[in-house]
Amino acid sequence: MVEFSDITDARQRIASKIHQTPIYESSLLNQWLGSRILFKAECLQRTGAFKVRGALNTLAKLAEKNQLPKQIVANSSGNHAQAVAYAAHLYNVPATIYSTKNVSAVKAAATRFYGASLELFETRVEADHAVKAAATHADTLWIPPFNHPDIIAGQGTLMLDSADQVGDVDAVFAPCGGGGLLSGTYISAKALNPNTKVMGAEPLNANDAAESLRQGKIISLKGPPDTLADGAATPSVGEHTFEVLQQIDKLYEVSEQHICYWTQWLQHLLKLHMEPTCAMTMQAVVEWLRSVPANQKVLVLLSGGNIDHKKMTQIWQTDHLSQLPTL
Amino acid sequence: MVEFSDITDARQRIASKIHQTPIYESSLLNQWLGSRILFKAECLQRTGAFKVRGALNTLAKLAEKNQLPKQIVANSSGNHAQAVAYAAHLYNVPATIYSTKNVSAVKAAATRFYGASLELFETRVEADHAVKAAATHADTLWIPPFNHPDIIAGQGTLMLDSADQVGDVDAVFAPCGGGGLLSGTYISAKALNPNTKVMGAEPLNANDAAESLRQGKIISLKGPPDTLADGAATPSVGEHTFEVLQQIDKLYEVSEQHICYWTQWLQHLLKLHMEPTCAMTMQAVVEWLRSVPANQKVLVLLSGGNIDHKKMTQIWQTDHLSQLPTL
Repeated sequence: MVEFSDITDARQRIASKIHQTPIYESSLLNQWLGSRILFKAECLQRTGAFKVRGALNTLAKLAEKNQLPKQIVANSSGNHAQAVAYAAHLYNVPATIYSTKNVSAVKAAATRFYGASLELFETRVEADHAVKAAATHADTLWIPPFNHPDIIAGQGTLMLDSADQVGDVDAVFAPCGGGGLLSGTYISAKALNPNTKVMGAEPLNANDAAESLRQGKIISLKGPPDTLADGAATPSVGEHTFEVLQQIDKLYEVSEQHICYWTQWLQHLLKLHMEPTCAMTMQAVVEWLRSVPANQKVLVLLSGGNIDHKKMTQIWQTDHLSQLPTL
Repeated sequence: MVEFSDITDARQRIASKIHQTPIYESSLLNQWLGSRILFKAECLQRTGAFKVRGALNTLAKLAEKNQLPKQIVANSSGNHAQAVAYAAHLYNVPATIYSTKNVSAVKAAATRFYGASLELFETRVEADHAVKAAATHADTLWIPPFNHPDIIAGQGTLMLDSADQVGDVDAVFAPCGGGGLLSGTYISAKALNPNTKVMGAEPLNANDAAESLRQGKIISLKGPPDTLADGAATPSVGEHTFEVLQQIDKLYEVSEQHICYWTQWLQHLLKLHMEPTCAMTMQAVVEWLRSVPANQKVLVLLSGGNIDHKKMTQIWQTDHLSQLPTL
């Protein structure tokens, strides 16, 4: 079980290695919704996403105990790959990322720029097998994307940093993929103020976490989900994250139409190139605001900004900007 | 003729009314190009663009002399409309913006949000006639988009603010539409350091400024240009801006292909939702870097971030992210 002190410790470890990303808000959006919505622009973080927090905490903690591995491996085609590459480079440990051959040129270039090797396979299953085999080698550390206390503690620092900037809030919203960010956020936010609501958003088309909460046990997606929010397409949560997720105030399931709508609007209003995965949380905010009095103070964690070309064309296919946001 | 002291005066007038927007850079891009490129993220400015600087300077200067008008008018379908609406609202003067009926819902909503009325016409020519007629009324001020010393002095504050953040640079690049930003930038930059190169970028498909410089007189476009960089689609520069533009170090003409390429890449690398008009300047940077030794320190002014839906689909139509930037 991750404690609040694990998160404050994590913050001490990683603070000098990451940016303090800014908080933005839109006066138009605030007026339209009748509440104040504060956005933590973590898409401006090193490597373009919050994932670097968990990876750095993992390695910094090992470094403190002189237990750094001789080699690091990870399997990811997303933000975790770049996070691990960046963190491994900072600690001078060679890293290998196992991914699929259809990884975008941009992501491959970024991962290599941070100093990692890439091993590319035809399928995700082959890549997953390969990383498992590699992790059995001596002195090799496999850094998981979410289901580990050190990762959860690292991701929990995003809420801590935000609270320094915005003070007390009525509610905080984060996206839910594997649940690392959302569970870390829950532990931080409730320790700072038990009255702060902590809520999550997940694509309706990849609603394994919501289904797991309904059934009281971890349920996996049956196949690769069809969702714009690729950062939340994780097949299932893990036992560490599920334990915390069971305590959050609410998990909203968001349609593809709403994910697309809010990605266009938040990119436009905030002038930030943010992923559908984090813009998705705005639909949860709106649904919650409909159920409470006006003038709420809300924090939204914008988790990342790495979007490939194909996803951008999908996001901007239909015109959603002609329909103004409203409660 | 605008003097440097007009710009320092303008800064004193407007500093408390605008954001100090951040400077960002991409370590990947710096490595690929072998120089350091610093980006002034003015797309994060109030109203989403630098235009608010000139409009505020105009009104603040009149307010100092107790000469505020009873009414303000302007003709624009772009960033100038929102800038005038915002500035007029701050000084409690009613404003009317004359535009065309095809103005996007987003821009219309923003202009009204800042408190201005919108008068919409079938064509741009009708809107221009209407604003001219309105400007003849007593106590009515028509705020022009670029061709006025107070506007140029206001836009010149962007370079001053940037210099405070980044110090001395080898070169600064700005887009050229009517030339307000570029001429203000020239006056600021050369006063701070005469050795700093000041260069501009203009769409090849709307190259009236480049043509004017070649012919030594102001040349107008023959019709509405076909360019992604709508902020630089102005039919001609003005006599005030042309006088300064004739002194700049170089004006680059950028193809539509390159405008699109750099809009995708800068949105991706910097995680900023920026207009093609400012991303365009990056092609000028690359062409200049090819002609000089490595390790230059370059400042790029990212002028704005208001992009309608149609423009976004055009920007992301072709995949440019598969081809990495290089010198």
